[in-house]
Formats: sequence, C-alpha cells, structure tokens
Amino acid sequence: MLYIGVDLGGTGIKAGVVSETGEILSKASVPTGRERPYQAIVADIALLCERAVQEAGVTMAQIKAIGVGVPGICDPRTGVIPLCTNLGWHDVPFVEELHKHTALPVYVDNDATVAGFAESIAGVSAGSASSVFLTLGTGVGGGIVIGGRPYSGVHGVGSEIGHMIIRMDGEPCTCGNYGCFERYASATAIIREAVRAVQDCPQSMILKRCGGDPARINAKIVIDCAKAGDETACRVFAAYVKALAHGIINIINVLDPEVIALGGGVSMAGEFLLDAVREAVKPLIFFKSMPYARIELARLGADAGIIGAALLGRQ
Amino acid sequence: MLYIGVDLGGTGIKAGVVSETGEILSKASVPTGRERPYQAIVADIALLCERAVQEAGVTMAQIKAIGVGVPGICDPRTGVIPLCTNLGWHDVPFVEELHKHTALPVYVDNDATVAGFAESIAGVSAGSASSVFLTLGTGVGGGIVIGGRPYSGVHGVGSEIGHMIIRMDGEPCTCGNYGCFERYASATAIIREAVRAVQDCPQSMILKRCGGDPARINAKIVIDCAKAGDETACRVFAAYVKALAHGIINIINVLDPEVIALGGGVSMAGEFLLDAVREAVKPLIFFKSMPYARIELARLGADAGIIGAALLGRQ
Repeated sequence: MLYIGVDLGGTGIKAGVVSETGEILSKASVPTGRERPYQAIVADIALLCERAVQEAGVTMAQIKAIGVGVPGICDPRTGVIPLCTNLGWHDVPFVEELHKHTALPVYVDNDATVAGFAESIAGVSAGSASSVFLTLGTGVGGGIVIGGRPYSGVHGVGSEIGHMIIRMDGEPCTCGNYGCFERYASATAIIREAVRAVQDCPQSMILKRCGGDPARINAKIVIDCAKAGDETACRVFAAYVKALAHGIINIINVLDPEVIALGGGVSMAGEFLLDAVREAVKPLIFFKSMPYARIELARLGADAGIIGAALLGRQ
Repeated sequence: MLYIGVDLGGTGIKAGVVSETGEILSKASVPTGRERPYQAIVADIALLCERAVQEAGVTMAQIKAIGVGVPGICDPRTGVIPLCTNLGWHDVPFVEELHKHTALPVYVDNDATVAGFAESIAGVSAGSASSVFLTLGTGVGGGIVIGGRPYSGVHGVGSEIGHMIIRMDGEPCTCGNYGCFERYASATAIIREAVRAVQDCPQSMILKRCGGDPARINAKIVIDCAKAGDETACRVFAAYVKALAHGIINIINVLDPEVIALGGGVSMAGEFLLDAVREAVKPLIFFKSMPYARIELARLGADAGIIGAALLGRQ
C-alpha cells in the first residue's frame, strides 16, 4: 500500500507519495498563502495530494491514507487543530474539512512529532521502540515516539521539549517564560551569543566572515569559525553544546529513550556537533554504569515531515 | 485474585495482600538489615510474604503474583536490579533469587514508579491513562504512568524527574550535577533555604519554633510558619512553590499527562500547598487556551508502595 504525506508549513505546503517503508515516490509543493481562510488552504492540500499521486505514476486507489504534519498542536482523535500560531488557526476542524475533498482516512499530528516518527521508522532511530527527535532550528522542536507510536500527550500539548525550562529566571522566551531550552539550544541562541561575544572580541573571525556586520551573523558562520579554531566562536559553541547536553540529560533522566536524534539547521554541523555533545553528556549521566540513549544525527532532513506524516496512516 | 505487594526500603520492608482493586487486606513489616547479603534480605521478603498472607486469612493458592518496589533502578524484563545505592546493591538477580523461595510470578520496579502506578489505579489519578506522581521528600521521586502502565524508559533509568535540571549551574546535587529539580522542590530545599533565611531574619517565627537552633528546622516548621503568615517563612515557601511549578511545567510541556499527583512529606501541607502550586503553574502554561494536567494531592500515602507493587502483577 502507499500513503500520502503532507508537510504543512507557514510558507509552503509539501506533499509526497510514500511507500510502506518510508520511501518517497514523488514530491509536489505549493505556497501556503496563509492569509487565506483555512478552507482554501485545505482545498489546496487536496489538489496537491492529487498532483503528488499523478507525479508518482500511481492512482488514488493505491493510496491507503493521507497524513498531515501541522506546525501547531493537534487533537489526533478529533482531527481538530486547536491552535496553530503560524497559520493563525484556532479550533480548525481540519480532518472534517479535508474529508470534503477526499474519502481517504486522514491523520494529523504536530510537525516535529511527525518528523521524529519518520526517523523512528525510516531514519536514524529505525527499529527503536522509543526515541526523541530534536530540531535545532530557529526554535527547538521535539518529537517523541514511545512504544513505536508518536506521543503528544493527553491534551496534545506535550512533546514541547523546546519549552522545557533548563535555567529558571534565564533568557526570556517567546512563550512568555524564562530559561526555556530553545533559548539556549536553537540557532537563534548561537546568533544571540555570538552577537554579544563579538562586542567584546571585535577581532573574532566571526565578524570578518559576516563582513563586519553583526546583523549578518548566522549559526553556520559561528560553527564554521569554531571549526576553524576561532577562540570567540569556540566559546559560543561550547556554551551552546553545554546547554544542549543539559536538555538531553533531562530527556534521558525523564524519558530514557533508546535514541535521541538531532535534526534541524544546527545539526548540519555534523560530527563536529555530535562528538562535542556526546562528550558533554557523558559526565552529566546519573547512573554512570548503566547504558543510556544513543545520541545521533537525524538522517531524513527536510523529507522527514512528508515521510512521518504519510506513515501516520500505517498505524 | 489477590496479589502481594512488597515495599523494600533502606530501613524497613513492608508487605501486604492487596485485592484486584487496590484494597489492602493485611500488612506486615520487618527491618531491612541492609548490611546483610542480598540473599538474606530476599529470604526475609519471602517469609514476610507468607506472614502477610496468614494475617489476611487467605492462602498462597489465592495469590496470583508478588510485586516488589525497590529504591533503585530495575530492569523489569530481566528482574535484575542493576543499581540500588540505598542497599549497596549492584546487578542483583532479584527475581531469580526470590524464585528460590516461591513459584509465584515476581515483578519488580522502582519504588516511586510503583507508588505512581498505585495512585493511577486506586488513588487520585484513578481512571487516567497517563499520570505523573511526585514524592516531595528528602529528594524528589518521580513515577510516570503512560497508557495505564508504569514507565521507566528503555534502560530503566527514566522517570528520574528529581534529576531534571531546572537551573543550569544552580545548587549542587547529590548526583554530581547542578540545578536538579530536587535541589529546589524537596523538603531538603525548604530546610536549606530556611536556614539561610533565618541568618538574615533572626526575628522569624521559624527560629522560635525550632528552639533557636537552625539545625532543628524541618519542612513542617517552615510551612506551618508560612501558614501563620511569618514573612521569612512565606518567602521561603514562595520560592519553593515557584521551583515546584517550574518542574511541573516541564512535565506538562514534555509529557502532558492527565494528572500530576503530589505526594511525600511536603504534600502533607495539603490545600495550602496545592492552591499555591496551581496558582503558580497557571501563568507558566504555554498554550493558555488548552486544557492541561490536573494537579492534585496524592491519596494513598505510605500504602502506595505496597499497593502499586502488588498491582504490577495485575498487568
């Protein structure tokens, strides 16, 4: 059987036909046009699904279900999206609306959860019963898989690992609290700390690489400078890794998953990041003699959203 | 069918016969004598089970299984206890050893996990599919129930909610890390902060209640003084509640359970604590329009260990 996976984002919608094992047979995309009413966006999703099916050279009769990953919170049981800040949605009866266009079963879940689910089936945590996926991007997204199933909690508001508080009274967060994990473990955190650091260290390679304009600093520049041995960049990177390790320790001490997969923009730093994080986690482990989660780089990249959404229908 | 529950502690062992619904029919206890080899302790557990059965006026033929809650980490699948610091145990083949004395099925899990499981069946979180239990005592223990089953993670090292870091670089913890939740949300934390506070405020009611000797301060004295309106005690209590609320927010943002149950010595403060914690959690909630976990006082008290251990056999 085949499945359609839809990755609904704030700027674009991507859809693909996906096999039972998580292989993508086709991909299609369209701008979200998020200023429009949700009905128009859902209609576009239905059309995009048809396009993806055509491009895969298959027919709708071969599709078992449609799964959608949404950048907000979902109630997988009712198919309602209570809140999606990115799209300005409140209590949108998403599944009901999509059923006006298709008779296929429709599944919906949070985008980071769905990406983590994809990694647990076709990516780095394949074969593990439980895993946690972290997207290290503008913020930090979390996807929890327990017992082979995506886990978003009882009210659908769980798995918000980026808003786990690791430094009470710390940096102010967009959520209104202080000291959330994503204030320290996102690309945004690297940029913020680098901007602060170059004020005291104007000789840093970071400033040269961004043409002397701190407003042009991004996470890649900072990490590249750290790789090149720039002292200021190394200090910023070390603080980043320390905070990421602390969040990972919380995941280990509470959830104790089999795998913790690092995805998102910052994870493009590859082994340089992975080695540093593994080293930083080690001394923080509570039960030193016991095995604990493997920390790995995610493998599916931007396709994780389509694959994981599609495989929601496989359950 | 009936079950035997054993609560194995560092100083005493308690056992009881428990009904299918979590009712205790008998209780028996014996000192642990933890300096002895584990074989002697396990032999005592077997004898204690027989005594509990006799005192319940039933026979061993009516017992379906024995469950044991252990103050350490367990591998429920192998029945081995890899680590139990309190008893000085390392890789003890607990279930195998107990099987030298009984042919009944034996189940073993962490004591806080087992207490949380008891609350989820016969206590305040009865009927909920997922719940988190916190023991606010010398440390902070955590018991997670997901999908009606105790959850300790893949390697048995999860559910250590007391060692979730909420203040990176904060107070040093017994685990070797800094800023663990239990450094702020245990009775020990209340005592530490009260001892610090009375140095600056020697006129505090706290000092009067402990006969002028800060070494005699305990959590009950501080909370009683806060209830009576003593300014210093109120400040210590407010800081305690704030930290507890931050840990609870992390539980909500990651696990999103149906119920969070507060047990242990500090929870004896009752509604005074509960009302304050609920108020402190409210403004920290991420998705303000969404329902979230009910925060409640645990109901089973010291019996939770026996009941939860017994009901491990009901699965």
